Amino acid sequence: MKKRVLYLALAMSAVYSSTSFAEDTLMEQAQSQFKPIPNSPPALRNGKTITPEKIELGKWLYFDPRLSKSWLISCNTCHSIGLGGVDLEQTSIGHGWAKGPRNAPTVLNSVLNATQFWDGRAKDLAAQAQGPVQAGVEMNNTPARVERTLRSMPAYVESFKIAFPGENNPVNFDNMAKAIEAFEATLLTPNAPFDQYLKGDNSALTDNEKSGLKLFMDKGCSSCHNGANLGGDSYRIFGVAEKPSNKILPEKDKGRFNVTKKSEDEYAFRVSPLRNIALTPPYFHSGQVWDLKEAVDIMATTQLGIHLTDKENTSIVAFLKTLTGDQPKVEYPTLPPQTKGTPLPITN
Amino acid sequence: MKKRVLYLALAMSAVYSSTSFAEDTLMEQAQSQFKPIPNSPPALRNGKTITPEKIELGKWLYFDPRLSKSWLISCNTCHSIGLGGVDLEQTSIGHGWAKGPRNAPTVLNSVLNATQFWDGRAKDLAAQAQGPVQAGVEMNNTPARVERTLRSMPAYVESFKIAFPGENNPVNFDNMAKAIEAFEATLLTPNAPFDQYLKGDNSALTDNEKSGLKLFMDKGCSSCHNGANLGGDSYRIFGVAEKPSNKILPEKDKGRFNVTKKSEDEYAFRVSPLRNIALTPPYFHSGQVWDLKEAVDIMATTQLGIHLTDKENTSIVAFLKTLTGDQPKVEYPTLPPQTKGTPLPITN
Repeated sequence: MKKRVLYLALAMSAVYSSTSFAEDTLMEQAQSQFKPIPNSPPALRNGKTITPEKIELGKWLYFDPRLSKSWLISCNTCHSIGLGGVDLEQTSIGHGWAKGPRNAPTVLNSVLNATQFWDGRAKDLAAQAQGPVQAGVEMNNTPARVERTLRSMPAYVESFKIAFPGENNPVNFDNMAKAIEAFEATLLTPNAPFDQYLKGDNSALTDNEKSGLKLFMDKGCSSCHNGANLGGDSYRIFGVAEKPSNKILPEKDKGRFNVTKKSEDEYAFRVSPLRNIALTPPYFHSGQVWDLKEAVDIMATTQLGIHLTDKENTSIVAFLKTLTGDQPKVEYPTLPPQTKGTPLPITN
Repeated sequence: MKKRVLYLALAMSAVYSSTSFAEDTLMEQAQSQFKPIPNSPPALRNGKTITPEKIELGKWLYFDPRLSKSWLISCNTCHSIGLGGVDLEQTSIGHGWAKGPRNAPTVLNSVLNATQFWDGRAKDLAAQAQGPVQAGVEMNNTPARVERTLRSMPAYVESFKIAFPGENNPVNFDNMAKAIEAFEATLLTPNAPFDQYLKGDNSALTDNEKSGLKLFMDKGCSSCHNGANLGGDSYRIFGVAEKPSNKILPEKDKGRFNVTKKSEDEYAFRVSPLRNIALTPPYFHSGQVWDLKEAVDIMATTQLGIHLTDKENTSIVAFLKTLTGDQPKVEYPTLPPQTKGTPLPITN
């Protein structure tokens, strides 16, 4: 009887050690593939600096609908700070209620992406910010009109001077974009359960979430979705293993091919960053899938050529939900009043 | 020579005294007609209470575009906290880019108005809040769908329970409106130069602004525009002295007549509250006038049957600009995530 107790104790100890060993390995494996979201913005590329003055000016611009022709649409309309950095629409609605071609990617943690837009056509957030302001189906404005608008408001003029010291003509479209970039770089969501785990807190994930993490790495998801943002830094053909339906991958949108004109980029898209993914349906560039579980199944079949069991899928979704971090705290800015010189809104 | 100096000193003293007397009288006259904006919300009518829990819930609702059918339009779209509580549009743009019939009044200090809307058809802010959510040209939603939406999100359900304790069915359309009312009641703009003046600081207004204040009272503006909001608590026929143009007073909109069906209310509108008026063009229910000076001239001719000199008008406008107070500081809320049970947006 004593012997049996001893065996049992030994067996239990072995089980415990092996779990512990597996857990350590899992954490190490994760740490080798992913990085936590930083608490403060990383250095920008091309030597651009982030200053408090640029951030504050950028916040005004981000919330100011007067950057749009109609005065109805701001950056925050399609990338709402309160809704995971997105608009929760299949594809964004813009000037004249026009329906845009693609789903709005989240602004949160977007500074950590290697490129911007679904096709990566913008090299950074400043380049990105210039797009929607001018797009006919978005804000439908022109750089010249935006500049006239900003120059008509003394508080903006003063803020541009302070944010871009020493420049002869600081109120211009490029600086508008740079200030927006500086503000957007602050929109980070650190401290997700997965970040806590990556920093060594083994209790930050449940067993089911850990199973999901393991599957996410072992099945191959993390071969594309890795780094701090679990994506956002490479391109893959959507449907490399099995083509998705026309509804999810509309034929007319050839993705990165539109940028590079290379045949190998047909239907290639930027690998979606997965941070806060539970907050940002509907999924894919076409915005056709509302259910995260369904989106995971589609990824498995189209990109990896595998079928997940219901249990596997559930675990992966549980893991993906651990990517939701602390949402940014932003005080709504009081915007400068327009003047007689401000070009008036045009809504038709 | 000594005598002349003495005379001069006496004369100056007399001028000084008389100015001082006139200034005291002006302040007393102003204090008898106007009241400062309070620093905190007044008690609501009908025994409704404002609690921190209602305010916080109301803030979520105020910024949540999922109260609209399209998920694109929130209260803040037409009553932007950052733009003087308005949308700066002639008349608001709503669902499907529909153009509404009237200019959006400011939400700031609106709790101090006796009634809401240009025709006063809502007795308080809670009644007001139910309107735009349902209006086809605004948020285009239904109470039943709003309730389904709110009930589908656990964080909303919990917040309604806490904000409306002891109620069997707290998540309902009426309570939504009451919470929005509680939040809106906090959107006050105290501490304008005119408030400082009303509280006894004679130096808070310049001489020109004081001239404007005196004209505002002596010419008759303040016979309607008085109280804390300088308006918002009575109705007047637009054009009582001289009918404005059809452009400014479109024939088809008969104002308060639509509410009361009394012939004496044809073309009567609520007297506009003038707080922060410099921030909230374009003016009048038709939103046809962008220039405050022009708006003052129109009021003088149509309501008082007088013509102001350019100097008089300039002084009155200078006074009106002293009505701009401290704009509210609001942290953008992180909104609860939707669930599978949430009715999806419909944009067409």
